[in-house]
Amino acid sequence: MASSLISRQVALCLHKNVWLSSAGCRYVSKAAAKTQVDYDYDGPLMKTTVPGPRSQELTKQLGDIQNVGAVNFFCNYEDSRGNYLVDVDGNRMLDIYTQISSIPIGYNHPALLKMMTNPNNLSTFVNRPALGILPPENFPDKITESLLSVAPSGMTRVQTMACGSCSNENAFKSIFIWYKNKERGHNVPSEEDMSSCMINQAPGCPDLSILSFMGGFHGRTMGCLATTHSKVIHKLDVPSFDWPVAPFPRLKYPLEEFARENAQEEARCLEEVEDLIVKWRQKGKPVAGIVIEPIQAEGGDNHASPDFFRNLRNIARKHGCAFLVDEVQTGGGGTGKFWAHEHWGMDDPADVVSFSKKLLTGGYYQKDALQADKPYRIFNTWMGDPSKNLFLVEVLNVIRRENLLEEVTRSGKALLNGLYELQAQYPGLLSRARGQGTFCAIDVRDAATRDRMLVQARDKGVLLGGCGDVSIRFRPALIFKEYHVHIFLNIFNDVLAQNK
Amino acid sequence: MASSLISRQVALCLHKNVWLSSAGCRYVSKAAAKTQVDYDYDGPLMKTTVPGPRSQELTKQLGDIQNVGAVNFFCNYEDSRGNYLVDVDGNRMLDIYTQISSIPIGYNHPALLKMMTNPNNLSTFVNRPALGILPPENFPDKITESLLSVAPSGMTRVQTMACGSCSNENAFKSIFIWYKNKERGHNVPSEEDMSSCMINQAPGCPDLSILSFMGGFHGRTMGCLATTHSKVIHKLDVPSFDWPVAPFPRLKYPLEEFARENAQEEARCLEEVEDLIVKWRQKGKPVAGIVIEPIQAEGGDNHASPDFFRNLRNIARKHGCAFLVDEVQTGGGGTGKFWAHEHWGMDDPADVVSFSKKLLTGGYYQKDALQADKPYRIFNTWMGDPSKNLFLVEVLNVIRRENLLEEVTRSGKALLNGLYELQAQYPGLLSRARGQGTFCAIDVRDAATRDRMLVQARDKGVLLGGCGDVSIRFRPALIFKEYHVHIFLNIFNDVLAQNK
Repeated sequence: MASSLISRQVALCLHKNVWLSSAGCRYVSKAAAKTQVDYDYDGPLMKTTVPGPRSQELTKQLGDIQNVGAVNFFCNYEDSRGNYLVDVDGNRMLDIYTQISSIPIGYNHPALLKMMTNPNNLSTFVNRPALGILPPENFPDKITESLLSVAPSGMTRVQTMACGSCSNENAFKSIFIWYKNKERGHNVPSEEDMSSCMINQAPGCPDLSILSFMGGFHGRTMGCLATTHSKVIHKLDVPSFDWPVAPFPRLKYPLEEFARENAQEEARCLEEVEDLIVKWRQKGKPVAGIVIEPIQAEGGDNHASPDFFRNLRNIARKHGCAFLVDEVQTGGGGTGKFWAHEHWGMDDPADVVSFSKKLLTGGYYQKDALQADKPYRIFNTWMGDPSKNLFLVEVLNVIRRENLLEEVTRSGKALLNGLYELQAQYPGLLSRARGQGTFCAIDVRDAATRDRMLVQARDKGVLLGGCGDVSIRFRPALIFKEYHVHIFLNIFNDVLAQNK
Repeated sequence: MASSLISRQVALCLHKNVWLSSAGCRYVSKAAAKTQVDYDYDGPLMKTTVPGPRSQELTKQLGDIQNVGAVNFFCNYEDSRGNYLVDVDGNRMLDIYTQISSIPIGYNHPALLKMMTNPNNLSTFVNRPALGILPPENFPDKITESLLSVAPSGMTRVQTMACGSCSNENAFKSIFIWYKNKERGHNVPSEEDMSSCMINQAPGCPDLSILSFMGGFHGRTMGCLATTHSKVIHKLDVPSFDWPVAPFPRLKYPLEEFARENAQEEARCLEEVEDLIVKWRQKGKPVAGIVIEPIQAEGGDNHASPDFFRNLRNIARKHGCAFLVDEVQTGGGGTGKFWAHEHWGMDDPADVVSFSKKLLTGGYYQKDALQADKPYRIFNTWMGDPSKNLFLVEVLNVIRRENLLEEVTRSGKALLNGLYELQAQYPGLLSRARGQGTFCAIDVRDAATRDRMLVQARDKGVLLGGCGDVSIRFRPALIFKEYHVHIFLNIFNDVLAQNK
């Protein structure tokens, strides 16, 4: 406790070991100085263990209103800056989890604060429209300037939604509607279609399915949840659909060192996908679409090769299934490209791409053919929130102006190299370091040790998240620079030393 | 076209008929002057037919990006005020639809604009937290000040969500979890529960059901959609669950004139509910919960008596089903009480009450027993949006300060009386006028006439919405006063004269 009261900055300067200087501590790095985030803090600063007394008090207060079992601590968002999250006890933590990967350019970014002070934007916050029927004048321009300016290859159509789950739910519905019209050969439902659908029965509510992958996460509403297979706690006791679940490749890392074995594993999974498509067609529950994350995030940061995704995309095409790429967590630049699927190098990567989190608004892009044929089929009251688009415009400007995707690639290399070094240093404790950009992860010996390390890191001023059974995931903002990597590595090294 | 270019205000003053003066035109009404909304406009002002040329141009532009079949016109939200929505062609319409019933105190209310200029609130907009793990310091206070200050009887727990569908999806999940733990007698899942749920199979994903009503609307994500039965277009081609659908009473209006027949109809529906509960239990798909709207809105503004709901609540209790009252459209004051279920006069009206729209944030209240037993069972990244709670605090202050629920009751009486008079005057055209507060509706001869009348009213400066097959629904803001009622009635009378 006493040591955690010492300013982290001081502690870092006092910290000495061979690894630290060879990895390039930010106090000596020239490269780091160039890319300083000027509204950022200098480093973590811890005053109490976390949660501190004020957080505990508030947790008790909120506990009378909600289940607070998942609350880590309470935040002082006013005082948070850039890569640093400040809590209500005055602790300042380097945030490498960023609100479950949903803060794109750090806390209180000047560009976002400035946008808020523009009186022309006031009305967008105060008057939330029913976007599907009464959009504001600037809506086409704003989504052109924001979402369409980063549209995935081959897609010119985008639909906003309020959150990630709603995005996938509506993407699924678009897919079902498209599939059913394709099956009919036209879009005129029969009398029987119309009467049966009103009581949830076939043929109006057809027995179609979405194929998903073990370990995948696509949200928690009931449609999405039927494609989520990452943790028991998400799914237990909730009714579901009998939809096919394929194995996701379980690869060895670093991928390039195990290319041959990994290719075999991927081939096995692809074969299983085709088998399931055939089997579910025979069961009378045809697979209308396949949904997959470019990197399984919640499920444990599981990667697959570009070849795997290209082949999977071809299988979808071959069997007439729509291909939905869920970029809710991977989208927005964390992998060093704006969309993780860009790493596959395809002109036609998907039929639908869903997003949320770092994009600040939910939604999905789709190919022309996938757009619902009639109004009100994909619809709800709000259909998103145009105030979020205003923020997104600014976020994209900052990403371009500051070349943040290049920065992410650079920081990501430093982070992954650091993780490689640490796992070489602590072979019994760490394994399977992996990542793209700063979207990195590493496995810990066991779940208990992983969980303990997360708390220890937090008490030393680094906020991290877990994923899968034994992984730590890294989800910094796009303004996470090389010198932040080194602050992290130094602290993480201390934590590892405690857990050898 | 030419006549619509005349200022509506002038047109109104020129307008003369016996009905008009007897109903109390605002130009002579003393009562109206007292309650003037000072930031409001004087009346509608139409410059073009709607959609005008600029709206058409923008619709074309947006059509390259999205399906725009449902777009009515584009809005100038900056210039909209109080009860008046201004479009991009400079038309100013009295808004009795309010973004599908989701604008509580009109456009650009000074209290909301003022809230936006408070620098202390900036950070809440700029840094959207993952509320379930890292709430802001003021979160417990803000939901106490907002949502808990209007909590339904017997409920002290509330969970925010981003929209109405997510609210109901999570309410369903809470119900399933509660039901299953009750069935188990404890909350420790078996090995089989845990392994089977990961692949969507029973017993981990149990065959439980939610009983809903024909004509009900509870959202469009796949769980909600299985309880929605209002229109084919919502449900067609989307897979669903085999859940029971009970008849909703089809009553005669005015309710007090047909008390005996209506009571019989309600008894028939309640009997059917019990039959379905028994039948679905026998099918191995027990009814874990019953979901119902206090007034079926989207399905055609169908009312039932307080007795019906009290009996239904007892049936739910008797059979061990949770009782979920969906107040997404009825909540927030439109019926003259903050929650429509308050009209039932019960101390224990529900186990769960969901909300969204006028509350500006989605979410649901629940009784202690319904709260999920473990963290992360009810969870998602954002869990709502605290910036919406800031607005809600101000909205509730305005409602209290200006006694808006009393105002709604008063305006509602004037509106319903006006509708009664009009239906007496146009018996072949209008029927079944009904309502609670300003939450009113009336039926039109047929769907084509109804749809045409909505367009005609719009071109004369009144924005209305349809619901059900042939109904017009009235969903003004809570600041809709008696003199607004008379502006509406005058214009509606013109429309009726065109459709005799």
